[in-house]
Amino acid sequence: MKSDIEIAQSANMKPIVEIAEKIGLKDDDIELYGKYKCKISLDVLKRENDKKDGKLVLVTAINPTPAGEGKSTVTVGLGQALCKLNKNSVIALREPSLGPVFGIKGGAAGGGYSQVVPMEDINLHFTGDMHAITAANNLLAAAIDNHIHQGNALRIDSRRIIFKRVMDMNDRALRHIVVGMGGKPNGFLREDGFMITVASEIMAILCLANDLMDLKERMGNILIGYNLDGEPVYCRELGVQGAMGLLMKDAVKPNLVQTLENTPAIIHGGPFANIAHGCNSILATKMALKLGDYAITEAGFGADLGAEKFLDIKCRYGELKPDCVVIVATIRALKHHGGASKDELSNPDVEKLSKGIGNLEKQIENIKKYGVPVVVAINKFVTDSQEEVEYIESFCNDLGVDVALAEVWEKGGEGGIPLAEKVLNVLENKESRFKCLYEKELPIKDKMNIIAREIYGANGVSYTKAAEKQIKDIEKLGLAKLPICVAKTQYSLSDNPQLLGKPKDFDMSVREVRVSSGAGFIVVLTGNVMTMPGLPKVPAANRMDILEDGTIEGLF
Amino acid sequence: MKSDIEIAQSANMKPIVEIAEKIGLKDDDIELYGKYKCKISLDVLKRENDKKDGKLVLVTAINPTPAGEGKSTVTVGLGQALCKLNKNSVIALREPSLGPVFGIKGGAAGGGYSQVVPMEDINLHFTGDMHAITAANNLLAAAIDNHIHQGNALRIDSRRIIFKRVMDMNDRALRHIVVGMGGKPNGFLREDGFMITVASEIMAILCLANDLMDLKERMGNILIGYNLDGEPVYCRELGVQGAMGLLMKDAVKPNLVQTLENTPAIIHGGPFANIAHGCNSILATKMALKLGDYAITEAGFGADLGAEKFLDIKCRYGELKPDCVVIVATIRALKHHGGASKDELSNPDVEKLSKGIGNLEKQIENIKKYGVPVVVAINKFVTDSQEEVEYIESFCNDLGVDVALAEVWEKGGEGGIPLAEKVLNVLENKESRFKCLYEKELPIKDKMNIIAREIYGANGVSYTKAAEKQIKDIEKLGLAKLPICVAKTQYSLSDNPQLLGKPKDFDMSVREVRVSSGAGFIVVLTGNVMTMPGLPKVPAANRMDILEDGTIEGLF
Repeated sequence: MKSDIEIAQSANMKPIVEIAEKIGLKDDDIELYGKYKCKISLDVLKRENDKKDGKLVLVTAINPTPAGEGKSTVTVGLGQALCKLNKNSVIALREPSLGPVFGIKGGAAGGGYSQVVPMEDINLHFTGDMHAITAANNLLAAAIDNHIHQGNALRIDSRRIIFKRVMDMNDRALRHIVVGMGGKPNGFLREDGFMITVASEIMAILCLANDLMDLKERMGNILIGYNLDGEPVYCRELGVQGAMGLLMKDAVKPNLVQTLENTPAIIHGGPFANIAHGCNSILATKMALKLGDYAITEAGFGADLGAEKFLDIKCRYGELKPDCVVIVATIRALKHHGGASKDELSNPDVEKLSKGIGNLEKQIENIKKYGVPVVVAINKFVTDSQEEVEYIESFCNDLGVDVALAEVWEKGGEGGIPLAEKVLNVLENKESRFKCLYEKELPIKDKMNIIAREIYGANGVSYTKAAEKQIKDIEKLGLAKLPICVAKTQYSLSDNPQLLGKPKDFDMSVREVRVSSGAGFIVVLTGNVMTMPGLPKVPAANRMDILEDGTIEGLF
Repeated sequence: MKSDIEIAQSANMKPIVEIAEKIGLKDDDIELYGKYKCKISLDVLKRENDKKDGKLVLVTAINPTPAGEGKSTVTVGLGQALCKLNKNSVIALREPSLGPVFGIKGGAAGGGYSQVVPMEDINLHFTGDMHAITAANNLLAAAIDNHIHQGNALRIDSRRIIFKRVMDMNDRALRHIVVGMGGKPNGFLREDGFMITVASEIMAILCLANDLMDLKERMGNILIGYNLDGEPVYCRELGVQGAMGLLMKDAVKPNLVQTLENTPAIIHGGPFANIAHGCNSILATKMALKLGDYAITEAGFGADLGAEKFLDIKCRYGELKPDCVVIVATIRALKHHGGASKDELSNPDVEKLSKGIGNLEKQIENIKKYGVPVVVAINKFVTDSQEEVEYIESFCNDLGVDVALAEVWEKGGEGGIPLAEKVLNVLENKESRFKCLYEKELPIKDKMNIIAREIYGANGVSYTKAAEKQIKDIEKLGLAKLPICVAKTQYSLSDNPQLLGKPKDFDMSVREVRVSSGAGFIVVLTGNVMTMPGLPKVPAANRMDILEDGTIEGLF
């Protein structure tokens, strides 16, 4: 079997102008970035305003495990399979972050024969969106310290600055730092820290904005900290949101690339799926809906975190209405949820599978609460036994849920045809009655309670004293009516990563509540969230190289 | 008079494919970044290897003053003027740095009717070269701290790490910081600091490399610090130069844009002109020489710093041979060198002019030492009197040096025709007998002595004890045979910014000597060099905005 980068580098890519033309884009609608990448003008959305949207399919998953689920791979494969069935499908995905590429992941753009290409560019600088976010973020950060240094007219309390600098690199040494050392010329000393770029609120804003002016206004609304009287200080008071908008003028435009089988793929934005909402931009999804008859998109982590936020935050702000949700599961991962150790995952074991299948069951149940029809995709591995496959199939059949095997990693779109057919069948025959889970006007704790009970299956939610105070502060700021963005472990339906499968009889405990006033959501944290990863002992970077003939090694 | 951004945004740009075609580039030679920017494949240099190079014209200046000289503007204007005379001229310039754009400068791409466009893109993210350098630099920085955290097999002495992180932002709070706070998960505590991206050694390397493999090797040669036995540790020992090369795979390719009058301009690389050599990349200059009959390029600061390094470092490594040097002066700046205060600069004053003209005289004398013919360009201001102009003209005539008025800011290429004609005349009638000022094999102090006496007019050079030790260390490393890169004030021929005009009877004092072993030069510092600027009280960023219709404000 070839490696991902080998497959990607031997892809038969078409010039992106051809891909663009196929979905009705004209010369003036696109800006090329080399021969195989382009940005799409936002004017297209205005022009096609009256055109009927395509069908929206969300791909999500069970709670992720070390065994791997392949959600992006299935998303790409499903898009390719629909094309094979002569459907006009357009994929919408998140942009990978440079930092993790050099850390453990080594790349993220699908896998095997279901990848987006040019994989090496998408995984490196792509069209510079991440760099634009980094620059806009750090301009604001520099403006804050400069404001204090230059007389501090706003009386910013340097002990209560919550806006952090960012870098698109896994660099643990920057997590907690002291800045402003060296005396007067270097400003005032204070504690600070860097986050990875995708954790920047500007990334979340990019993904929820409807256009550049909306983006600019939301950036102006970022709460950067408090003054010495305890009053909030917003970005707009520093007067740099115009320059930040200028830095984002190209980043706001969605990027068009293609899959290995030349299916159009719009890749744009990629916020964290814990402290942010973990979906590609609303603009990318809207573009896919205008340009395709079928828009296939994904959300981060499992359905409890990713799909919940997709449905309650992104769909709410973007006025989107999903027509079908695909839940990806693997037999290996379900056995892991059933208690199988890493070494046992390759052994056929229907008992462990039956113990772990509760996780899938709960995710299905959750999506049904939103009124959206579900299809389960079993992402097939060579070690899966026929008996195990049949077990899941009959389990889904009993629930009245469609299920299909996906062999897209090994076979590309061809391997996704059974899944595509099920999805098409659902889209034609089952109506989506989508509604959000909660009204955003409810009190913060009520909203959290609904999510915890309905989605996670918790008995209730407890709050630390700090969290209680933070909720009151947010209410005082007049920001309590924003939707909730939960930051919790992705590995469990609960807030305890050890509780696999379908946990019962547990309470959630909320440690901290923050407001992302620019992005427009309230972040409820149930544990420590790492916003700056570190490099492992042998970073993926150490395997990477580019040779004289242009051959790239170590991206996968 | 319109502002620079107003002129730039009303420019009649041609699609860059047309500009590329005009200079013989084929479709496969370029990669588009939007309609008006592209990167040029390095394969072009290989293919055109046997083609005769065009003539190389370097534009430099007297020592800069607050009055402004307009070196980039004259460079662009001269290129435009040559086109007006139906000559195939190609301009090669440095890339502006994002940080200063938001600080005081507000942009840097020529001025008035002699600008490169799209000015707003060139001044913002352009084609992402700066971001690629930032990423490659910070990958290495993260790898260093990660190596120490993961067991420190190389026994790196965390007190002696000289490689710093960078950010393309003016952010004084990052000049001197403490990283690794927060205990074991965040690595070891140490002092550190950020530089602005253009100060990264990787920027200097980009500008001196002959191709991507050379770039990769030089990055591997960066001295990052010392181990606990005092032995040097190089980047290559951390094994990330391959990944750094991968990050630089597109940044290594020169960028093609155009001037307001559609003259081709290659803009690529822009290292600091003090701790580095301050010229655009060798690859850009070579490309301009292959694609144009006349390649017009510039060097940073005045001729004593910028041209000296262009000639002794860049020409040496690039095997370039300049055919003519244009020295830009303004009457206002020369009066400043003659002691006129800021308020007096607009008053005609031949006496002050005659006192300050020594600065121009010395720069002319210096260029002649390299065997290259000189043309003086008087960059005209409305306040210049006829008498003052005639004084400079007769001064130059007495020295046997050609002189011409340049009115390129106000009139574009048309205003540069007299200058272009003088330059053409020199290129046809005066032969360049270019040679470097010193042999690089000489001992460090001998090389420095030659530069100080011959170029600056110093009596001699003294060294601090620290500098003496550093010189011995560099000799021990076997790196003493590299050329010298002086870091001194740009405002004076001496190392004292107060000594204007043509200072006499002074000694230089060297405070520190560093080696940039990747770039391949020895940095001799005569004072403090600021490698991370700060924002002013009202940053240029606060004037910037982008409106709904795309109008950009505040870039100039």
